[in-house]
Amino acid sequence: MQIIQNPKPSEWAEVLKRPTQSVEALNTVVDEVFTAVIQNGDDALKTYTKTFDGVALDALLVSSTEIESAKAAVAPELKAAIVQAKSNIEMFHKAQKTSRIDVETQAGVRCWQEKRPIDAVGLYIPGGSAPLFSTVLMLAVPAQIAGCSSIVLCTPPNTAGKIANEILYTAALCGVTQIYKVGGIQAIAAMTFGTETINRVSKLFGPGNQYVTAAKQFATKYGVAIDMPAGPSELLVMADATATPAFVASDLLSQAEHGADSQVVLVSSCKTLINEVSKEVVEQTQRLNRKSIIEQALNNMKLIYVSDQNQAVDLINFYGPEHYIIATSDNSFFTDRVQNAGSVFIGDYTPESAGDYASGTNHTLPTNGYAKAYSGVNLDSFLKNITFQEISKEGLKNLGPTIELMAEAEGLMAHKNAVSIRLKTLNNES
Amino acid sequence: MQIIQNPKPSEWAEVLKRPTQSVEALNTVVDEVFTAVIQNGDDALKTYTKTFDGVALDALLVSSTEIESAKAAVAPELKAAIVQAKSNIEMFHKAQKTSRIDVETQAGVRCWQEKRPIDAVGLYIPGGSAPLFSTVLMLAVPAQIAGCSSIVLCTPPNTAGKIANEILYTAALCGVTQIYKVGGIQAIAAMTFGTETINRVSKLFGPGNQYVTAAKQFATKYGVAIDMPAGPSELLVMADATATPAFVASDLLSQAEHGADSQVVLVSSCKTLINEVSKEVVEQTQRLNRKSIIEQALNNMKLIYVSDQNQAVDLINFYGPEHYIIATSDNSFFTDRVQNAGSVFIGDYTPESAGDYASGTNHTLPTNGYAKAYSGVNLDSFLKNITFQEISKEGLKNLGPTIELMAEAEGLMAHKNAVSIRLKTLNNES
Repeated sequence: MQIIQNPKPSEWAEVLKRPTQSVEALNTVVDEVFTAVIQNGDDALKTYTKTFDGVALDALLVSSTEIESAKAAVAPELKAAIVQAKSNIEMFHKAQKTSRIDVETQAGVRCWQEKRPIDAVGLYIPGGSAPLFSTVLMLAVPAQIAGCSSIVLCTPPNTAGKIANEILYTAALCGVTQIYKVGGIQAIAAMTFGTETINRVSKLFGPGNQYVTAAKQFATKYGVAIDMPAGPSELLVMADATATPAFVASDLLSQAEHGADSQVVLVSSCKTLINEVSKEVVEQTQRLNRKSIIEQALNNMKLIYVSDQNQAVDLINFYGPEHYIIATSDNSFFTDRVQNAGSVFIGDYTPESAGDYASGTNHTLPTNGYAKAYSGVNLDSFLKNITFQEISKEGLKNLGPTIELMAEAEGLMAHKNAVSIRLKTLNNES
Repeated sequence: MQIIQNPKPSEWAEVLKRPTQSVEALNTVVDEVFTAVIQNGDDALKTYTKTFDGVALDALLVSSTEIESAKAAVAPELKAAIVQAKSNIEMFHKAQKTSRIDVETQAGVRCWQEKRPIDAVGLYIPGGSAPLFSTVLMLAVPAQIAGCSSIVLCTPPNTAGKIANEILYTAALCGVTQIYKVGGIQAIAAMTFGTETINRVSKLFGPGNQYVTAAKQFATKYGVAIDMPAGPSELLVMADATATPAFVASDLLSQAEHGADSQVVLVSSCKTLINEVSKEVVEQTQRLNRKSIIEQALNNMKLIYVSDQNQAVDLINFYGPEHYIIATSDNSFFTDRVQNAGSVFIGDYTPESAGDYASGTNHTLPTNGYAKAYSGVNLDSFLKNITFQEISKEGLKNLGPTIELMAEAEGLMAHKNAVSIRLKTLNNES
């Protein structure tokens, strides 16, 4: 935990430095697994699953029997919570649908833009101690709304060869039927190239450990798109004297528990608040189960006092936080000036965990400053824009000479000729 | 030129194989140039410009005097054509503006999405024998509409240290003032890291040779986004017996003149048309200035006879052409079924060159099958989606228990606690 007073803009880069994560060192193992999956398909997937996940599988596809028993096993209260979250996420992502854009740019020249779903998408859901079923909602719900015709979900099995009931329940709830027991690099390879069992996809989504991250980056060399580059999760809270220190501390801690490399930043115009938050953080940590992870993340926590509101805004936009909480007496001042952020949480009663699970916004967001150029996952992440144009005879008579002049000036005479040959026909007609 | 009859779906991959382009072999030289630019900034840019472009520059920034004299030098007719094209491109891209999406997902839980410009963007315009000023329009117009506050344009100088008048005129017309005489890998490095003179950007746009392509890919490792991965340009024409062979041939040739590795494909339900087009192609080639490039590209041209319309649609979506011309008696049949394409040109009087220059659509489009997952450049390419949420006390009372249950089921107790601590306060209040 480090308290910094009014850092100068020239110092921001150093103060807000993120933990660097380079996954290139893993490229050798990624290459090896990719080659094996290309050559041996499902057999390679099963071999790696035995090696890395410690289980010999007969079938990669989760059976309908397994899905039914998972549905029966999830507690009714949790099911109701997941259904509620799904409903909110669905409503917000459905609202993101846009209609076709249709313009006559000049007489007889009609241009339009339509969105079409990405046919085949792959969703990666990490395994590990806790089942991240919330990520299933965040990826499968917009994929369904977009109309992706093939949705493949890969997630590693446990040593008993099982997938967590909550993941299977949520996937089924979202209408995902192609669920495969395969994780890590081999899962990414399977979705990139396809195997006997698993269909290849055009775009990969979802979080993962450093191997999965490296594999997703590597996969882009083979023509597959990815949702966004990955980095450690992060939260920046802007809080003034009116904020509640215990609430701010609870939010910082919810970020810190994600991992030892989580980035946690508080910016405040109030030194008292900074002190109170730092005390609350220490106190609340004692009562939390992931204490050792949290304490490692807190080592790198920055508490930054900035006396000037405008400078605070500049510093925050310079950082471009993945999650950005605003708890001040003038929230609209900060909200209006957001330039770079993944998702913004406004006011005392909007904790980050609301967006992580259930408010309706997506939790797959740009980290590592990528918010300066990337959007978080949204409905458009599952769609492509295609443009269309249709020019009438009259339209080409109007526009043709413009095209001819420009093509000639660029030295592309065949481009010019494609217009000239048509204009000649039209002139002969009239 | 190769004529193929009714290929089976299992043969499509082989028939429609694209020329592979791997730029990884260039990574060593890219790395070297990047390192030099990081270390020596403008000095490195000048050194490489001397080596690669054969000119020793005093200043990298194009001066206002140079811009003024370029404006005076461009012929009035060409200026009028560029202004016309700009007007159409502007109208179509302005129509792509979307309004904020604002939803109360449940009582007291408000979520909204707003687009904000990418602050700093970099536009790369290739040099070479012909000045590609049309690409300036395609990138600078939407960047301006989006409201990007810093637009950097890099393009290599000729051996006299000059930039083509048409490029300077067009850039000035689009309000771009940061124009630098630097090309190749060193230009991409300059925009990625910034130098004393050139500001670093968050996203890079624009075409280029294999060195530029390699440098753009490499730059993504340093946190810069790029418009899309690049590959050779391509056109697929779907034409039936009603199409005009001379028009179809002229379009195929306009694609072929881009480069020896251009991909040119005709799909047709009419064998006579295929024969006539192939004759027209040979004839028209004789009258074109880039004959030797065209002949190389034509070696790889595919003329594919497909008797069944539905199979033709499937084959075309399998390929996912960058440019797709539809010239049939039932254009709406093919238009409605477009799943994967960059830009679509409909009818006898809509040549590809219309969209390349002036109809209003963008000409920066996904090649190499990337149309399956990527959009062409559009207004959104210069914007990010940011989500916001604001939850009232009542809202958190409603949604809080859902978040608590889900966080607990994922084993993230600090996430749960951020809600619980607030609900406790609210319960004490009431």
